[in-house]
Amino acid sequence: MSRFDVTILGANSAIPTANRFPTAQLLNINESYYLIDCGEGTQIQLRKNKLKFQRIEVIFISHLHGDHYFGLIGLLTTMHLLKREKPLKIVGPEKLWEIITLQLDVAGTKLAYPVTFEPISFSNGALLHSDTKIEVTALKLNHRIACAGFVFKQKPKEPSVRKDKIQDHQLTIDEIKELKSGNSIERKGKELLNELIVQPQQPKAYAYVTDTKMNEQIIPFIKEVDLLYHETTFKKHETKRAKETYHSTTHQAAEIALKANVTKLMIGHYSTRYDNLEELRQECMEVFENTVLATEGETILV
Amino acid sequence: MSRFDVTILGANSAIPTANRFPTAQLLNINESYYLIDCGEGTQIQLRKNKLKFQRIEVIFISHLHGDHYFGLIGLLTTMHLLKREKPLKIVGPEKLWEIITLQLDVAGTKLAYPVTFEPISFSNGALLHSDTKIEVTALKLNHRIACAGFVFKQKPKEPSVRKDKIQDHQLTIDEIKELKSGNSIERKGKELLNELIVQPQQPKAYAYVTDTKMNEQIIPFIKEVDLLYHETTFKKHETKRAKETYHSTTHQAAEIALKANVTKLMIGHYSTRYDNLEELRQECMEVFENTVLATEGETILV
Repeated sequence: MSRFDVTILGANSAIPTANRFPTAQLLNINESYYLIDCGEGTQIQLRKNKLKFQRIEVIFISHLHGDHYFGLIGLLTTMHLLKREKPLKIVGPEKLWEIITLQLDVAGTKLAYPVTFEPISFSNGALLHSDTKIEVTALKLNHRIACAGFVFKQKPKEPSVRKDKIQDHQLTIDEIKELKSGNSIERKGKELLNELIVQPQQPKAYAYVTDTKMNEQIIPFIKEVDLLYHETTFKKHETKRAKETYHSTTHQAAEIALKANVTKLMIGHYSTRYDNLEELRQECMEVFENTVLATEGETILV
Repeated sequence: MSRFDVTILGANSAIPTANRFPTAQLLNINESYYLIDCGEGTQIQLRKNKLKFQRIEVIFISHLHGDHYFGLIGLLTTMHLLKREKPLKIVGPEKLWEIITLQLDVAGTKLAYPVTFEPISFSNGALLHSDTKIEVTALKLNHRIACAGFVFKQKPKEPSVRKDKIQDHQLTIDEIKELKSGNSIERKGKELLNELIVQPQQPKAYAYVTDTKMNEQIIPFIKEVDLLYHETTFKKHETKRAKETYHSTTHQAAEIALKANVTKLMIGHYSTRYDNLEELRQECMEVFENTVLATEGETILV
């Protein structure tokens, strides 16, 4: 089985408290790591959770509010001090690179590892990254400053031929190849139907929707994902405050999940005013049943 | 009695670990707060130690290596989000202001409180800040990039007249004034000597010496301070590594303390390689007896 899960490093909004860190998530796709946002203290959270941060291949930064990126320069510097050599890719708003290079320059630091920077194109469906394991596309969110969401889709994999059927029919290697390519085969004039023997591998998808007003335009782009992370900075009755601050309420996030027909909704980016986060989950469940909380240190399967 | 103490928020060098934060110290002078350096996570440490960070009046940043300032932008932003109105002064290397304004600009943030920025003049004895309580002067340290130390001197206070003497001699208000101004007074042809009646108030001083090679040129400027913080990144035998990286060993720090004839030495900026910090203290004590460790969460009287 392939691995595809996300570990929550921080799920609080704007203001960090003594025990709630700002946004950061670590995606593990078959032991390749992808970091999504990097609030202050992310490197401390990675260590606490014993996640080997030198394994991170790409870092995605949604927007340039501090609770989503103030931990990045510290993480990059620590990777350098610990003698990283492996290349790193950063995907983020264009100005991010100016900030990083300025901070490295004044410190007289030349990173020991190669970094490539990919500026975000803020439009729905824009391709941001592709490798052998995943394809990542952008969502255009609606926040006070330019803000992107991300859709992480596993690359489609070769279908697998059922082991019991290989045994039953004593299939040859050539026959297995034929079946994998999508065709059926013939055995003594009888057809062995492809769909009875071959298991299609369903690639999974994770959508990450942080700081945004409720925004239905993203729905076609997150349709039927296995897991949707959607910010719920506020409770359901705070629609006015949510609108003013370009954030979402619990009900709004759950409505997006419902309309996009996703499998599971994970909520987060909680306002510091809320102590009982379970109440936010309950509100979402009034609209969309399969809702979980983003909780620091927990890992959710996609 | 006036209060003058320093709380350690972080004392680790370069790389933060899960339970050792990079450099930050909070000076409390009669309930006015001054922050010295601000590594990543300083705002979290302030909260953990229940220190009201809106009370901070001046922030001093020694140099632009990340372990001394990556937490600053987050702290400034949180002060803003929590509706600070009180003015703040920042004293630091010139480029620091460029970094801060760039990060505020891209976030579309205009701070709700006035900030004044004072670029550091990197020369021994240069005046950096003065208010009713303290005077702060610079030390020119010897590090890979421009780095300042700081000397915090209490403002001299009016001498106090001994209460028992006021009683004994039934001193009048005019006589007390005369005594406070430094003169003696006459009583029926007999002189009441000033030095027998008046207690001079000895202003205290704290010197902060972070990232530097051993540097004897600072000695005249830290002479006889009550408390000297001096970095000890390395143990005594690591002189080569200390020199290469522009840091100090335990023995070097203790020698500076000895030659400057300070009352107490506090050490810190420990390399991540050391688990048993008491060993570093013992090494210092071979040269300078009155040595304490900078320990997160502890408060040391000046």
